[in-house]
Amino acid sequence: AVNASRIAEDIVALAEITEPGHPWTRRAFSPLFLEGRTYLEARMKAAGLETRIDAAGNLIGRRTGRKPWLGTIMLGSHSDTVPDGGRFDGIVGVIAALEVARALSDQSIELEHDLEIVDFLAEEVSIFGVSCIGSRGMTGQLPEAWLSRVNGDLDLAGGIAQVGGEPGVLQQQKRPDIAAFLELHIEQGPVLEAERKDIGIVTAIAGITRIEITVEGRADHAGTTPMDRRADALVAASQLVLDIRNAAAELAKMPGHFAATVGEFRIEPNAANVVPSKVVLLIDGRAEIRADMEAFCRWLDGHVEKLATAYGVTIATPKRVSDNQPTPGDAGLLSALEAACERVGAKHRRMASGAGHDTAWIAKVAPAAMIFVPCRGGRSHCADEWADNDDIALGAAVLFEAVREMDKD
Amino acid sequence: AVNASRIAEDIVALAEITEPGHPWTRRAFSPLFLEGRTYLEARMKAAGLETRIDAAGNLIGRRTGRKPWLGTIMLGSHSDTVPDGGRFDGIVGVIAALEVARALSDQSIELEHDLEIVDFLAEEVSIFGVSCIGSRGMTGQLPEAWLSRVNGDLDLAGGIAQVGGEPGVLQQQKRPDIAAFLELHIEQGPVLEAERKDIGIVTAIAGITRIEITVEGRADHAGTTPMDRRADALVAASQLVLDIRNAAAELAKMPGHFAATVGEFRIEPNAANVVPSKVVLLIDGRAEIRADMEAFCRWLDGHVEKLATAYGVTIATPKRVSDNQPTPGDAGLLSALEAACERVGAKHRRMASGAGHDTAWIAKVAPAAMIFVPCRGGRSHCADEWADNDDIALGAAVLFEAVREMDKD
Ligand SMILES: NC(=O)NCCC(=O)O
Ligand SMILES: NC(=O)NCCC(=O)O
Repeated sequence: AVNASRIAEDIVALAEITEPGHPWTRRAFSPLFLEGRTYLEARMKAAGLETRIDAAGNLIGRRTGRKPWLGTIMLGSHSDTVPDGGRFDGIVGVIAALEVARALSDQSIELEHDLEIVDFLAEEVSIFGVSCIGSRGMTGQLPEAWLSRVNGDLDLAGGIAQVGGEPGVLQQQKRPDIAAFLELHIEQGPVLEAERKDIGIVTAIAGITRIEITVEGRADHAGTTPMDRRADALVAASQLVLDIRNAAAELAKMPGHFAATVGEFRIEPNAANVVPSKVVLLIDGRAEIRADMEAFCRWLDGHVEKLATAYGVTIATPKRVSDNQPTPGDAGLLSALEAACERVGAKHRRMASGAGHDTAWIAKVAPAAMIFVPCRGGRSHCADEWADNDDIALGAAVLFEAVREMDKD
Repeated sequence: AVNASRIAEDIVALAEITEPGHPWTRRAFSPLFLEGRTYLEARMKAAGLETRIDAAGNLIGRRTGRKPWLGTIMLGSHSDTVPDGGRFDGIVGVIAALEVARALSDQSIELEHDLEIVDFLAEEVSIFGVSCIGSRGMTGQLPEAWLSRVNGDLDLAGGIAQVGGEPGVLQQQKRPDIAAFLELHIEQGPVLEAERKDIGIVTAIAGITRIEITVEGRADHAGTTPMDRRADALVAASQLVLDIRNAAAELAKMPGHFAATVGEFRIEPNAANVVPSKVVLLIDGRAEIRADMEAFCRWLDGHVEKLATAYGVTIATPKRVSDNQPTPGDAGLLSALEAACERVGAKHRRMASGAGHDTAWIAKVAPAAMIFVPCRGGRSHCADEWADNDDIALGAAVLFEAVREMDKD
């Protein structure tokens, strides 16, 4: 039903809208981002969609159904990228959604429901330090305090206004009309490719918990202080990094996706001849099953106490700087997606999303689910991120079938 | 023989010449440094010394002996500090040396040898990134290339000229007249205090070897990449930090001072949700016995290969970015210092210096040795560095006796 070369053409066109010298960068709130949207809007219009920017700065293409009182079927993802990111993360979900609208049009299919194709604003961590601005904002979940976060002379309210949104009314946003939301995204992991599956049916989006730990030792002269009289914060923190990795690997062996990563790590004073006095590190934890995260945090709280004693350093209770619950996919939509896979002959498996997505925010107010398409080596957020166009087109076909199915109800 | 309150008065006066808000900072090449030298020069003159700045920018106070052809007995240390450093590191050695000259004068003692009291320029790592500028420069050991190292608009040549030196003639500097050099310094370690000794007779200044290691893994998405499919550079580097510490602790148990410290450590990309792709770390190794350092480096070269395989990362052969041999103290001077300790009733022990000192550079061209006085908790290079005045005065008395002894020969 869908047209693979039309999908390829759009993905290539969007990829070319990149910062020169930094492929493939199209940061939210940049002039390039608006250039990308100009292209997208033209394509939406060409597909017969009526376009608008909502209060949260999302670009929406709308197609009216025969029974608008049934509500809106919404499809979409995001067109912004991380710095030096890829050509597929986000944009494939917008283009696949657009292709569903085009395929319906090609086949002169009128839906019962209204259909909306959405390019959510700033899904990636933005210049304001926060992410999923459009999906939170559309559903009244953008914390008001965030609007005054600044980057240079611009605050987030100003940024939303610049793309055509209306920041002043965001707290009142509600979308009670959403009957169902679906997002297609690259997996950003290696599982589908390794198992030669075409489609991942996302059972849940893992909760993300960020935990900050500060290890305090004592700055001593590296030349003169005997090895057995040190309180070396780096040595203690190194043990902690290994223990975190091992604990996470154990939890990952049990049912349900689990991962924990020390991604930020800095030492003080970071001087060649001074025993490190301090390490501040940040753990990024992901859990499909909330109880796993609670177990991890309980283990961690007790473990740092033991480590502190063993290494003669001080470690304050780990601090959860942010903490989100896992988001299960809507059971009905998961079945519809599986049925759609069967109809188009796509090999599929259920799996969790370790990454956060706009779907997690829409799921708070409406039935929502997502599907993954494979990406090479599981690589994402980098210039060599790659997804085969045939895989993307097959995913679009699954969306098409699922929309047809959902529209029947 | 020496006057403890005169020593205290000078140490307090110098401490007060500090950056306001950053006690106790008197950085080489700063206006405050020159203010300190103005004070020192006045005190040298008051002690009857003839003052000059040599080509390397060292402040020297000279007292002519009866038989100048016997050469010069030189005493000294440095008046510069690290940022937010202490009131004792360096300056106590200059003041103790000055006090020896004053005590000789008080007692109307004329020496056979000429006597020089030296404040070496920039012993600490300076704004030009290098240390021991005065002691290297005095003895023709300052690499010519260093003269063009810059800090802002100033190069090292300009810095030396600003304090009154003559950078153009440094390569020709020689001091064949030095008959003996002695330096008094705070221990910067906890051993003398713990063993209730008054004086450390420094058998050797440990060689300093700096080794850079780069661990390269793969940047993957922290949310989606399964724990068992990662090449986490931070995890591998953490294991390396622990192994380095354990290897160093083993070597430290054997005769001869040994220490190894990872003091610099930075990770890339240092982003919360990205598996770390790279760690660059710097080891500061200290060995009294050269063979220990060679053994450590051999172990390290082999070990990183094993670690790289075990953790699926790449670790290039560790790179020695600088490498100095240990410097033994002159045997004759060590005996003279011990005899001097006995005469003044100072409890003494032989020990190595884990820290580098100007003495190491003078020792390359002349008989040289140093003594340590205790410092509280072994702390140095920090605002709470402390040495008791009675200990410093006892050290000055040891210098006085040693000078008398050396002058006899
Ligand atoms: N999909 C995606 O990469 N989201 C960024 C947030 C995260 O999961 O770390
Ligand atoms: N004495 C002293 O602290 N020197 C600085 C060089 C070093 O040993 O690290």
